[in-house]
Amino acid sequence: MTDTVWHNLHLCPDGDPGQVVRDAAIVTQDGRIAWIGLLTELPGNYATLPRQDLNGHWVTPGLVDCHTHLVYAGDRADEFAQRLAGVSYEEIARRGGGILSTVRATREANEATLFAQSAKRLEAMLAQGVTAVEIKSGYGLDLDSERKMLRVARQLGERYPVTVYTTFLGAHALPKEYAGRADDYITEVCEQMLPALAAENLVDAVDVFCEGIGFSLAQSQRVFEAAERHGLPVKMHAEQLSNLGGAALAAKHHALSSDHLEFLDEAGVIAMRDAGSVAVLLPGAYYFIRETQLPPIALLRQHGVPIAISTDCNPGTSPSTSLPLMMNMGATLFRMTVPELLAGVTTVAAQALGKAEEHGRIAVGRSADFAVWNVSNLAELVYWIGRPLCERVVRHGKTAYLAGA
Amino acid sequence: MTDTVWHNLHLCPDGDPGQVVRDAAIVTQDGRIAWIGLLTELPGNYATLPRQDLNGHWVTPGLVDCHTHLVYAGDRADEFAQRLAGVSYEEIARRGGGILSTVRATREANEATLFAQSAKRLEAMLAQGVTAVEIKSGYGLDLDSERKMLRVARQLGERYPVTVYTTFLGAHALPKEYAGRADDYITEVCEQMLPALAAENLVDAVDVFCEGIGFSLAQSQRVFEAAERHGLPVKMHAEQLSNLGGAALAAKHHALSSDHLEFLDEAGVIAMRDAGSVAVLLPGAYYFIRETQLPPIALLRQHGVPIAISTDCNPGTSPSTSLPLMMNMGATLFRMTVPELLAGVTTVAAQALGKAEEHGRIAVGRSADFAVWNVSNLAELVYWIGRPLCERVVRHGKTAYLAGA
Ligand SMILES: [Zn+2]
Ligand SMILES: [Zn+2]
Repeated sequence: MTDTVWHNLHLCPDGDPGQVVRDAAIVTQDGRIAWIGLLTELPGNYATLPRQDLNGHWVTPGLVDCHTHLVYAGDRADEFAQRLAGVSYEEIARRGGGILSTVRATREANEATLFAQSAKRLEAMLAQGVTAVEIKSGYGLDLDSERKMLRVARQLGERYPVTVYTTFLGAHALPKEYAGRADDYITEVCEQMLPALAAENLVDAVDVFCEGIGFSLAQSQRVFEAAERHGLPVKMHAEQLSNLGGAALAAKHHALSSDHLEFLDEAGVIAMRDAGSVAVLLPGAYYFIRETQLPPIALLRQHGVPIAISTDCNPGTSPSTSLPLMMNMGATLFRMTVPELLAGVTTVAAQALGKAEEHGRIAVGRSADFAVWNVSNLAELVYWIGRPLCERVVRHGKTAYLAGA
Repeated sequence: MTDTVWHNLHLCPDGDPGQVVRDAAIVTQDGRIAWIGLLTELPGNYATLPRQDLNGHWVTPGLVDCHTHLVYAGDRADEFAQRLAGVSYEEIARRGGGILSTVRATREANEATLFAQSAKRLEAMLAQGVTAVEIKSGYGLDLDSERKMLRVARQLGERYPVTVYTTFLGAHALPKEYAGRADDYITEVCEQMLPALAAENLVDAVDVFCEGIGFSLAQSQRVFEAAERHGLPVKMHAEQLSNLGGAALAAKHHALSSDHLEFLDEAGVIAMRDAGSVAVLLPGAYYFIRETQLPPIALLRQHGVPIAISTDCNPGTSPSTSLPLMMNMGATLFRMTVPELLAGVTTVAAQALGKAEEHGRIAVGRSADFAVWNVSNLAELVYWIGRPLCERVVRHGKTAYLAGA
């Protein structure tokens, strides 16, 4: 019996501060939203349900983290410390550091270890209001290891109160056994890994890191075509360090999103708009690598490309598990507005996963997934620099997280 | 009876990762550290004490937050949202925003309200490992309101497991009733407010905001001289937005610290070194106001000026309650090293308060104040972008905070 009347709350049903309902009540039944309104107008048939007083706190949709590399093994904190101490990238690579150290650790970890290490990060994320998360592969870079990552991602969704969407990112980096043979690796990705993993139902979408230090446009296109053969939607790490035209290519393939986008130009913005792709901005990575090239926010606004915000949770360039802190960085570093940021972690983030009907909005008939915030107003969610404010997370009508419990 | 053998822990006794004791045990007796060593070498007289297994976690000194404006009333999140939406500073000031809105709210709040609002922030701070905190006045700007702030600061120290050091910052901003009469206000600060508040034992140190938009060198000097008449140590908000030579003036008055310091020059650095002043850097404020002028870290290192890091917790320029996040910003934005940052929130922060003998170090005979971190290595404390990692805080030998409890 989880049916409940949640009351004494202020409701932001869809991340839009203009649509707020003050002093609202929510009825949840069978895990779904049955009714929203003022407690004084509660229909008689709900009068006997148990009531939960939310103490005048604010309620938003459960947050959606639409771009993460949450599943990996090992630790890059020491490498971070070394770099601060003046050790060069080259020396760190010589010592076995960098992304390939995460690949090595992830390959070596068994499924249980990988699950346990990833679960700790997921727990931190859920404590900040998240009810849906995308998780990418891409530190395995061979069939067995990519499978292991995606299986762990699925298991996290089964054992934790969160909906997990998996993304196959075999084309994340070139494994050392393919050094100098990137095209051959892409063949492996397209003809061996993706077919096998898709057949095992481990893949909800397909992603490529298109970049000078990643894969070329032509290689990216081959991956997208393979995804299409399996009926899978695509997305892309595009224009992070340079403008290769990746977002436009992704748009041609009806990408759900292109992500990062610091070097995106207007042609790319227009292509994204025409394709209905979401721009996923990752202020944590921008901050952590001390980028100075800002993503083209004004152009995205001007052409009406929806903007999502995500943690990019990963060990090398964005060791973060807090979407609220990413909202603060989206405001402070990118000058995005509070309404843009709230939508960016709810409705638009859901759209970036192709799941706008399932997440990011509190509405009658939808799954009862919401976050309760100990704040006086919605702007506080963006304003504080990394202060934990989430009081409770409700998923499928049940309390899934309670602060201090 | 709080005497305990804490074991299965890795110990960083003084913020120096070079001085680590792995697989250590700590004996606390009567609120103090009685013994530190390997559990296998535990002296027989401690064998019957209750034991507490810390699960292989890392133990550091309780963190010291040496520069905060934690006590205030009201909320500036809406103003933050307005600025992002394009409202100008001038328009916000016209609407009653800016620092004077905090002054108004703080003056209007009664002591209980001010305590309750400030306590919520303090709780967030303590959950991140803090056992000693400095709290400044400076949003009252008249005798009664400054007294109220300092009384609340003292009460926080009595009712929460944290040592509070108060700083009188009457010279924080010019109250509107003194518009155009800054010298008269400084007279009020020096001849009325400080004597009264010092007599009530509400003042541990005296601070001035020396800046074009704050107070001049000559006005700052008058405040310092008044502090000296009362035997109180001084510190300064110096060189944040321009180089006025405030740090050198403060050094002449044997300041405990000068704080902010983005525009500090080498002469100021040398003056600080000669005076033994600590440089307190505030990366949260640097980040929040999108400053680009970096504090002169290399010069501070070269001349051996110790560097502390603090939250600057305040509603206008650094709404932050997390020292670990400030460490990450010190690394990411200032390129400070992990050892510098760990010292900067422990031993050096204690030195900035003139309390190096009482805080910031775990040693036999000292008060048993320490933080327990759920990390695999010390660098993780700096590496994560705002991930809460504090598992437990022990103060005077007793558990003062326990995550999820
Ligand atoms: Zn990514
Ligand atoms: Zn300050």
